[in-house]
Amino acid sequence: MARNTRQRILDASLALFNAQGEPNVTTNHIADELEISPGNLYYHFRNKEDIIEHLFVGYEERIDAAMQMPEGRLPNLEDIWLQLHLAFECVSDYRFLYRDLVDILSRSRKLRLHFARILKRGREGITDVIRGLVQAGVMRASAAEAEATATNILLTITFWLNYAAVRGDRDENRMIRQGIQQVMMLIAPLLRDAERLHLHHLSEAYEAQ
Amino acid sequence: MARNTRQRILDASLALFNAQGEPNVTTNHIADELEISPGNLYYHFRNKEDIIEHLFVGYEERIDAAMQMPEGRLPNLEDIWLQLHLAFECVSDYRFLYRDLVDILSRSRKLRLHFARILKRGREGITDVIRGLVQAGVMRASAAEAEATATNILLTITFWLNYAAVRGDRDENRMIRQGIQQVMMLIAPLLRDAERLHLHHLSEAYEAQ
Repeated sequence: MARNTRQRILDASLALFNAQGEPNVTTNHIADELEISPGNLYYHFRNKEDIIEHLFVGYEERIDAAMQMPEGRLPNLEDIWLQLHLAFECVSDYRFLYRDLVDILSRSRKLRLHFARILKRGREGITDVIRGLVQAGVMRASAAEAEATATNILLTITFWLNYAAVRGDRDENRMIRQGIQQVMMLIAPLLRDAERLHLHHLSEAYEAQ
Repeated sequence: MARNTRQRILDASLALFNAQGEPNVTTNHIADELEISPGNLYYHFRNKEDIIEHLFVGYEERIDAAMQMPEGRLPNLEDIWLQLHLAFECVSDYRFLYRDLVDILSRSRKLRLHFARILKRGREGITDVIRGLVQAGVMRASAAEAEATATNILLTITFWLNYAAVRGDRDENRMIRQGIQQVMMLIAPLLRDAERLHLHHLSEAYEAQ
């Protein structure tokens, strides 16, 4: 029963943070939403930061899984598309974190270190894939271009929802689709002509869905 | 004298917001910093939002100027480099705005509309330049790639400081240099071989400075 309340607090917090922005949600709001006393909430979590740290654990597992590339072979365009989809979905499910990223991380050394490590793992993984595709002759990119592309993919995944929000876009599904398209169109110029064409076809089919 | 106090409040607010993050600064902090009474501050500005809106006016002028392309001719790589430098410097000087962008804009319909218009003007301006370079044969990009590149340049300018911050980078000058490099390396694959090489030379010279 206690465990149940604990999970309900986490679920309600995530939903409220995502809907209203973390700075606009207090532990009182969360307790109100669940119709429990603030004392009951504090029995499970020390404060709002404690709730955020627990949500972050689930987030980190999801984003690491999303960035896992197929082992033992080079990913093809369809693999990359799928990974991007998983990554953008994870970002969307934990969008409160990305909305106020610098502020939230500034308050917790632990989250700051973990997030920096997630970015580092992501950058290394993506750079490996690009290097592999260059070696296989599928892509053409200098070392500097490969690194910039990896950084750019991470930057886009990290801030796409914020970019869409400040541009005035509110449709969550469209945001995710456009984010994937955006990354794919940045990869396109690096591809061999045949793959570049294949990518444009994939992209048009996806848009027409 | 009153006008002087007014400007001092704006200057001190900008400095405090940039140093500590806007959510961590109250009007009392600003009054304290200037050794004036809160009443004196409220004589000049209704509240913190009012101060932010006045700072935004100066910001909007700066960023519009930074995104102004040379008239009557296509920009060359050196022109683009200079524009990027001006844009990143402006972002750096008003970094409080970018640090908590979604949160700050969510509190003011006026700023939200203005910021969306700045992005729109920026995207249109950059897309025009890319189209011009494609027509002149300097760049090779499909319509979708040109649009994605324009969006990507804006996304990078908008969120580069946040990305550097969450990655653990603290050196402001290095951040700006790396931001410019990042954008240039994303343009590179679209360029004709001669220009691509020229860009890499420019980039290496810049890095060695």
